Amino acid sequence: MDAITVIRAKRDRGELTPEQIDWVIDAYTRGEVADYQMAALNMAILLNGMNRREIARWTAAMIASGERMSWDSLSRPTADKHSTGGVGDKITLPLAPLVAACGAAVPQLSGRGLGHTGGTLDKLESIPGWRALLSNAEMLDVLDSTGAVICAAGDGLAPADKKLYALRDVTGTVEAIPLIASSIMSKKIAEGTGSLVLDVKVGSGAFMKNIEDARELASTMVELGTDSGVRTVALLTDMATPLGLTAGNALEVRESVEVLAGGGPSDVVELTLALAREMLDAAGVKDADPAKALADGSAMDVWRRMIAAQGGDPDAELPTSREQHVVTAPSSGVLTRLDAYDVGVAAWRLGAGRARKEDPVQAAAGVELHAKPGDEVQAGAPLMTLHTDTPERFEYALESLTSAWDIAPTGTEFSPSPIVLDRIA
Amino acid sequence: MDAITVIRAKRDRGELTPEQIDWVIDAYTRGEVADYQMAALNMAILLNGMNRREIARWTAAMIASGERMSWDSLSRPTADKHSTGGVGDKITLPLAPLVAACGAAVPQLSGRGLGHTGGTLDKLESIPGWRALLSNAEMLDVLDSTGAVICAAGDGLAPADKKLYALRDVTGTVEAIPLIASSIMSKKIAEGTGSLVLDVKVGSGAFMKNIEDARELASTMVELGTDSGVRTVALLTDMATPLGLTAGNALEVRESVEVLAGGGPSDVVELTLALAREMLDAAGVKDADPAKALADGSAMDVWRRMIAAQGGDPDAELPTSREQHVVTAPSSGVLTRLDAYDVGVAAWRLGAGRARKEDPVQAAAGVELHAKPGDEVQAGAPLMTLHTDTPERFEYALESLTSAWDIAPTGTEFSPSPIVLDRIA
Repeated sequence: MDAITVIRAKRDRGELTPEQIDWVIDAYTRGEVADYQMAALNMAILLNGMNRREIARWTAAMIASGERMSWDSLSRPTADKHSTGGVGDKITLPLAPLVAACGAAVPQLSGRGLGHTGGTLDKLESIPGWRALLSNAEMLDVLDSTGAVICAAGDGLAPADKKLYALRDVTGTVEAIPLIASSIMSKKIAEGTGSLVLDVKVGSGAFMKNIEDARELASTMVELGTDSGVRTVALLTDMATPLGLTAGNALEVRESVEVLAGGGPSDVVELTLALAREMLDAAGVKDADPAKALADGSAMDVWRRMIAAQGGDPDAELPTSREQHVVTAPSSGVLTRLDAYDVGVAAWRLGAGRARKEDPVQAAAGVELHAKPGDEVQAGAPLMTLHTDTPERFEYALESLTSAWDIAPTGTEFSPSPIVLDRIA
Repeated sequence: MDAITVIRAKRDRGELTPEQIDWVIDAYTRGEVADYQMAALNMAILLNGMNRREIARWTAAMIASGERMSWDSLSRPTADKHSTGGVGDKITLPLAPLVAACGAAVPQLSGRGLGHTGGTLDKLESIPGWRALLSNAEMLDVLDSTGAVICAAGDGLAPADKKLYALRDVTGTVEAIPLIASSIMSKKIAEGTGSLVLDVKVGSGAFMKNIEDARELASTMVELGTDSGVRTVALLTDMATPLGLTAGNALEVRESVEVLAGGGPSDVVELTLALAREMLDAAGVKDADPAKALADGSAMDVWRRMIAAQGGDPDAELPTSREQHVVTAPSSGVLTRLDAYDVGVAAWRLGAGRARKEDPVQAAAGVELHAKPGDEVQAGAPLMTLHTDTPERFEYALESLTSAWDIAPTGTEFSPSPIVLDRIA
């Protein structure tokens, strides 16, 4: 078996054999297949595709490259959620403790932001003392004692995917449905969750810009999960508009705590509850009432214990930005569009995200929105506030916002898009 | 400018801008663009193509990556030939001294064999003492004193192509017309020849298996040459059958000397003369008679002086193989097919070629043919003789010959394909 034969097979639109897939993933993990060979293969896969059989084998080979975790010692069923990434998507933060408060265990392995979308670990690290890196034993401990844990995936989990993802990121081969699906599902299946709810984002702020691609990605992942014995369901949700009123690390933690306190923006609450119901249903937890768990403070209790168990101080003041810049509405009327991608890029340029994996992020940087589509705005009134510790970034951030919104004349009929667009099981 | 943006542009079927092409070739040569990024870009080019404008700029950028030679100090016009590679293709050996004998200067930068096709330098190195590596001053010296020089391209000539070719070879991206055309023409234009004849091979033993692809490659290269001020013409020639009666290094030198002595196989003589006439015509040399120069020994004189000028002994015994294996005809009849690719692979497996760039070649290894398509063969009579110094290779070589020929009943009408299939100017 050699790399060139495998590359040529996919280049010439052939189906890769199970043996070819097993070999190339294993040899790449061991360093026998070079980065430049895998880059050529990835581009051939992006342009020529893989069928469901190939994707399933590719995923299995990535799982087999590392350890597979197990939560059999827990007394509760496990449920996890994965989002394909969006702007202002802080849902994991209120969701994990909420589902735990309702009776399932949530072993949530999360990632960091790259590009214009934020990362759950970056957000939680704005809480003083909180740490993302746990050993497997610590992870089980936090999960067992609080019902939920949000932490970084260890190096032992799907190492092939780790290496491959870093390569795709620098070779223009991120946007391939077979590679996205196998990357997500190899980690989630190796993580050992019993059930999984996928939040597949659609719209300008998501990797999937149209609903057909999102549906294809979702059904591919649902099939992969189901075939591996994980009860899997996907919601397709709107990412044309940022979620909630904040995009940025500490800003999003603050908004998440508002939701856990029974308040918060209605779209964040709605999506949190929709995903919680799907997770509890997939985990087989009957008669749970997530809305009540938000209202009566039981979800907040789990949050506080979960944060504290990982070294964080749930009562600590969150960082605030050194400088702010207010963007005002140029005219009065009804806000009919607020572009998720543009807002995400602005938050990223303000310092909330990173350009390279090694870069640090600013905890307090980001964008705070004062209006959402459907709201009336007044000329000269604040539309959004930009936050950063490095004010030289304002100009660059503002450039990304030049066509970020539409304002229609007052009185225009407008109804915002629903949050949940479709469900695939 | 960054590599990911350039990769994405071609991945998404866009046209690369002149600035993007200049930047990516220069940055790759300097090591700023990584091998894995160039590999992804090459695969995107292979699958999505480049138009003529892009190919011309890509070629120009590769030429600009190194020095451009000049032969203005010579009193004669320069002419060169390039073959896209075939089995038994020793034409450069008699052709260069023949054209020199007729009045043009031939600055022939050649390569080594890789895969099933042989390399001119490997062939000449079977002559005791001959050396391929000359300084620019030595090259001019040999050219000026003998009229022809065949040597390796220096490191200063199109270094971008050198690096890119090595990468394509290990990433399954050799077979892309834009990349083949720009690779060949960047070297030939930088070499400084005033006119150029391209021998584009078609058939099982060539990279181009069908005439449409060969025509596309030929017309792309002719346009590239002409636009750069090099008088360029291409012949499309048959490579379904090996050229002549030998494939292998010393074996082919011996056959070439036969041609220079006025003998040799008719197909080798015919193609040598056809290419000589095109070169002399492109160089503007009038009233030359290449057939006479073969018959009267003047081409042989140039050969002897050219070999001697590069340290070789034209009178030395050529190496002969330690072991031979005769393959006999399984039945009597008319030989109607002798597959160039199969014979090339056999010669390569016997030791005439190399699997990796670092490998040595055997001077005496190869295949000697006793019949060509159109010939009558007798059951049990020799069809070919395999030569090697390492007899353990016979079995592996024979495997490649199991369906290398067809024999039709005696009396079957059969006319072999012409050598020159088309001409593109």
